[in-house]
Amino acid sequence: MKITDINTSSPYKAVTGSGLLKECGELIKKYTKIAGHAEKAAVITDDAVGPLYADIVEASLKEAGFDTAVYTLPNGEASKNIQSYAKVLGFLAESQITRSDFIVALGGGVIGDLSGFAAATFLRGIDFVQIPTTLLAAVDSSVGGKTGIDLDAGKNLAGAFYQPKLVICDMNCFDTLSDAVFTEGCAEIIKYGVLGDEELFKHLEKHGRDFDKEYVITRCIEMKRDIVCEDEFDTGLRQLLNLGHTLGHAVEKLSNFGMYHGMAVSVGMAVVVRASAAGHICSAETAERIVKLLKSFGLPTECEYGIDKLYELMQSDKKRRGKEIALVVPKAIADCEIVKMPLADMKSFMEKGI
Amino acid sequence: MKITDINTSSPYKAVTGSGLLKECGELIKKYTKIAGHAEKAAVITDDAVGPLYADIVEASLKEAGFDTAVYTLPNGEASKNIQSYAKVLGFLAESQITRSDFIVALGGGVIGDLSGFAAATFLRGIDFVQIPTTLLAAVDSSVGGKTGIDLDAGKNLAGAFYQPKLVICDMNCFDTLSDAVFTEGCAEIIKYGVLGDEELFKHLEKHGRDFDKEYVITRCIEMKRDIVCEDEFDTGLRQLLNLGHTLGHAVEKLSNFGMYHGMAVSVGMAVVVRASAAGHICSAETAERIVKLLKSFGLPTECEYGIDKLYELMQSDKKRRGKEIALVVPKAIADCEIVKMPLADMKSFMEKGI
Repeated sequence: MKITDINTSSPYKAVTGSGLLKECGELIKKYTKIAGHAEKAAVITDDAVGPLYADIVEASLKEAGFDTAVYTLPNGEASKNIQSYAKVLGFLAESQITRSDFIVALGGGVIGDLSGFAAATFLRGIDFVQIPTTLLAAVDSSVGGKTGIDLDAGKNLAGAFYQPKLVICDMNCFDTLSDAVFTEGCAEIIKYGVLGDEELFKHLEKHGRDFDKEYVITRCIEMKRDIVCEDEFDTGLRQLLNLGHTLGHAVEKLSNFGMYHGMAVSVGMAVVVRASAAGHICSAETAERIVKLLKSFGLPTECEYGIDKLYELMQSDKKRRGKEIALVVPKAIADCEIVKMPLADMKSFMEKGI
Repeated sequence: MKITDINTSSPYKAVTGSGLLKECGELIKKYTKIAGHAEKAAVITDDAVGPLYADIVEASLKEAGFDTAVYTLPNGEASKNIQSYAKVLGFLAESQITRSDFIVALGGGVIGDLSGFAAATFLRGIDFVQIPTTLLAAVDSSVGGKTGIDLDAGKNLAGAFYQPKLVICDMNCFDTLSDAVFTEGCAEIIKYGVLGDEELFKHLEKHGRDFDKEYVITRCIEMKRDIVCEDEFDTGLRQLLNLGHTLGHAVEKLSNFGMYHGMAVSVGMAVVVRASAAGHICSAETAERIVKLLKSFGLPTECEYGIDKLYELMQSDKKRRGKEIALVVPKAIADCEIVKMPLADMKSFMEKGI
């Protein structure tokens, strides 16, 4: 078991290890102050994850002295909307959850983001604990306090910066993921290698999908921690984490959320990496090496949409400020930078990578 | 014109005076940093306030160099729901409001609370300016950063602590209020007198509804500021502001929001004041003096609902923590205290005031 300290404005820990689900109640008592005030835990999960793990988590919470109530949403990105948000808040009210109680988000990124936003806003904010059960959620959304829901007009358009009180990553959860869900998580892991750790990148090149989970996930969480602690409220450095996301979000939207987030990010990374090579920001070799690694993990690297449709959606991206957009481009493996680009330039730049 | 500094975690100013609406753009440029980054102002208003003031506000914003977009909701508490919230967020997205732009809340408490929550959560937070056009909003909701919407299960169950960048109170707005809307604002003003300012209380006793608006409103804002700065996130002292609100919220809900918030708070204050006299927390004279002042302003002081129904709703009050509730009781004029009471005791205590 490894413990990573995350010193954001409200500090907390991320615990990584095997078999942690059945100890989650004890971990909450040991590593947070929640037990000092909470009587009840509201567990929010989905119908793919709940049947596997909700009983284990509930039993552990009860053993640690908490009452529990469980709410189960349908699995999938479609649940991350305002109707589900309203249902979760209604459930919290009916369950008489008070300001001193807490939420446990048990699931992937959708459950984490939605439950985190519910925690940030129910009674103007109650505590919450993230238990990510997918690779993607473990390395991406569970740490850093970005919570939110999708609107018809775009992904994550409603949300809050709201840190959890604890993140519990049980490696055993990642053994039961479907092939596609495992694969999409690998896109974000590869992203961390490209962003700032050539050792991690090489480990992935060497071991492929048989990488050392505890090493890799803990390393990704540490890297995310380092960036988030520098820029908790996403005003600069944190935009690095958006490598592949500007185009990725547009692809995800154009697929009507039929494409997994990680797959879309993989497409977005491949496009921006090829565009960077075409624009002499990185070498052709660097671009080839990154695209090759993505492909070797079974990730998509070709974009099936035209630049005009993509551009329309990229304009409503959150990273846009006025007429400029902040784009993350690789200069080399483990060396990326944020470039502020006028919208029109971004369009012709991206087009070269498609 | 008076300027009150409000030194919460994110400091801002409240400006009180006559004829400020037509200078709002300049005031925003002068007293905030918004002009340094914003291109566009999204004005959120309602169909009672918009026709009177939206043009004036838009013209002033444009004169100060901001693009504008205006969204108009139906007037009334019924608009403070999750559907309106979704519509406002949709409007912000369609208007291509970015993180560097801002919202102007032009209206009463419903518009202020809803727009503030939209500002707190759109793209995980953008700037906003409060222009309260009712007495109630000026002295109560516009200062202090409590934003939120109502759920079926209760008032303000979803929300955030999120401070505005500026509050602009134009006294001229309060001359055009309907009798009922003016009256309900007086309930909150009387509350401030009871809470901590006997001079203010005496001024109201002496002048009745012809009180000096600029003096009274500025004084209420200062008092609210003092409390909010001590306890921004509502963990203790700030609960003082809930005098009359625990029962008031239940009355409001039982009336199906047919009763104005301020009227319900007046009933709530009268009940808790009579209960406090019955329980020897304050003298019978103090209770009579408060109830008499409320009546002299045309405010209701009798509760038409039975304790059982009220109790059911009071249990889901946000001030409940586990099996206790924090109740604000007057010991004398300008001397109130917060008492933590077991729920069952609160029921029998309140019953004596009905």
